[in-house]
Amino acid sequence: MITLYQQHDSGNCYKVRLVLSHLGRPFRTVAVSSFDGSTRRPEFLARNPIGKVPTVELEDGRFLAESNAILLHFAEGTRLLPADAYDRAKAYEWMFFEQYSHEPAIAVRRALSVYPERRAEATPARMAQLLEAGNRALAVLERRLESADWLAGGAFSVADISLYAYTHMAGEGGYDLGGFPAIGRWLGRVAALPAHTPITAT
Amino acid sequence: MITLYQQHDSGNCYKVRLVLSHLGRPFRTVAVSSFDGSTRRPEFLARNPIGKVPTVELEDGRFLAESNAILLHFAEGTRLLPADAYDRAKAYEWMFFEQYSHEPAIAVRRALSVYPERRAEATPARMAQLLEAGNRALAVLERRLESADWLAGGAFSVADISLYAYTHMAGEGGYDLGGFPAIGRWLGRVAALPAHTPITAT
Repeated sequence: MITLYQQHDSGNCYKVRLVLSHLGRPFRTVAVSSFDGSTRRPEFLARNPIGKVPTVELEDGRFLAESNAILLHFAEGTRLLPADAYDRAKAYEWMFFEQYSHEPAIAVRRALSVYPERRAEATPARMAQLLEAGNRALAVLERRLESADWLAGGAFSVADISLYAYTHMAGEGGYDLGGFPAIGRWLGRVAALPAHTPITAT
Repeated sequence: MITLYQQHDSGNCYKVRLVLSHLGRPFRTVAVSSFDGSTRRPEFLARNPIGKVPTVELEDGRFLAESNAILLHFAEGTRLLPADAYDRAKAYEWMFFEQYSHEPAIAVRRALSVYPERRAEATPARMAQLLEAGNRALAVLERRLESADWLAGGAFSVADISLYAYTHMAGEGGYDLGGFPAIGRWLGRVAALPAHTPITAT
């Protein structure tokens, strides 16, 4: 069975639970966290030398890290990755956008807001800069979703899973999604899918 | 013919020239830059609403952005993307690592070092933090390359192209590659490939 090494309330880890839920693939979870030092212990570093979650152990015992790489691996050959070459490239484009322009603002501002361990980093200048960068990323998403139901091609895909994870928690980081109505409707469409699982589900 | 909208000395744009050189595909380039404002002009924003380079116009007139998404698109079905599903997933893993943990340190420290337009951002605290983060990313690369010739699977792939671009210019950002001998040997292997093209080539 697939094993997911994770911190449950991390959006990057949630992405993996979401894709496995949509694919109906069973998995077990093992809790590790940077806050209690367990991602720096030798037994975890043997699984992922970078010491980051999510890390997945596949059925054959091999390991894979980086949330979006895990999404693409599980989605390969399924309806969650567009079959058309250009649509698939657009899925890649959104997923690299997520890791470069979206997550480093929206996930980080949330982390600085909700984790006491990181509060010292939440200086006014840093928080202002993260707010501006995150709103810029949200505006890019909004623009796409004003004219399309899904991010890549015409159907729900791993690109939507990737962007959904931290976007749906943006409020915890102080972002006001009220100004992004198309994003709001898209969040509702994702959450209404039959195989959807909320982040709080175990 | 493929059109590459680019800033020539950007490592992200160089990646695209490298993959097209390895695939023997002809392309033309159009110079745009954030420094002269041309990436913010309406005619460029119509091609890529995010206003970033590289942006590629494919033969059918459609556009694609995000350097690593472009690499994956052109590599699909070629020897530059591993055919084995796990090796391909490891290529994805390295490419997301590049955009999240490598480029934001190594490319940014180089930009703050070489572009007069960005020198004001190069505060001692920022430069120290970027040096530490970049050396951490280089240590991850070094560890892989101590026991393997290439990053994903057993052959040169788009993962190597992705990581090569800014690693081979790390010295311009003040990184000392002398402490990373396995990286040094890998850079030599990449540069010795028959279809290699240096960043200075037009």
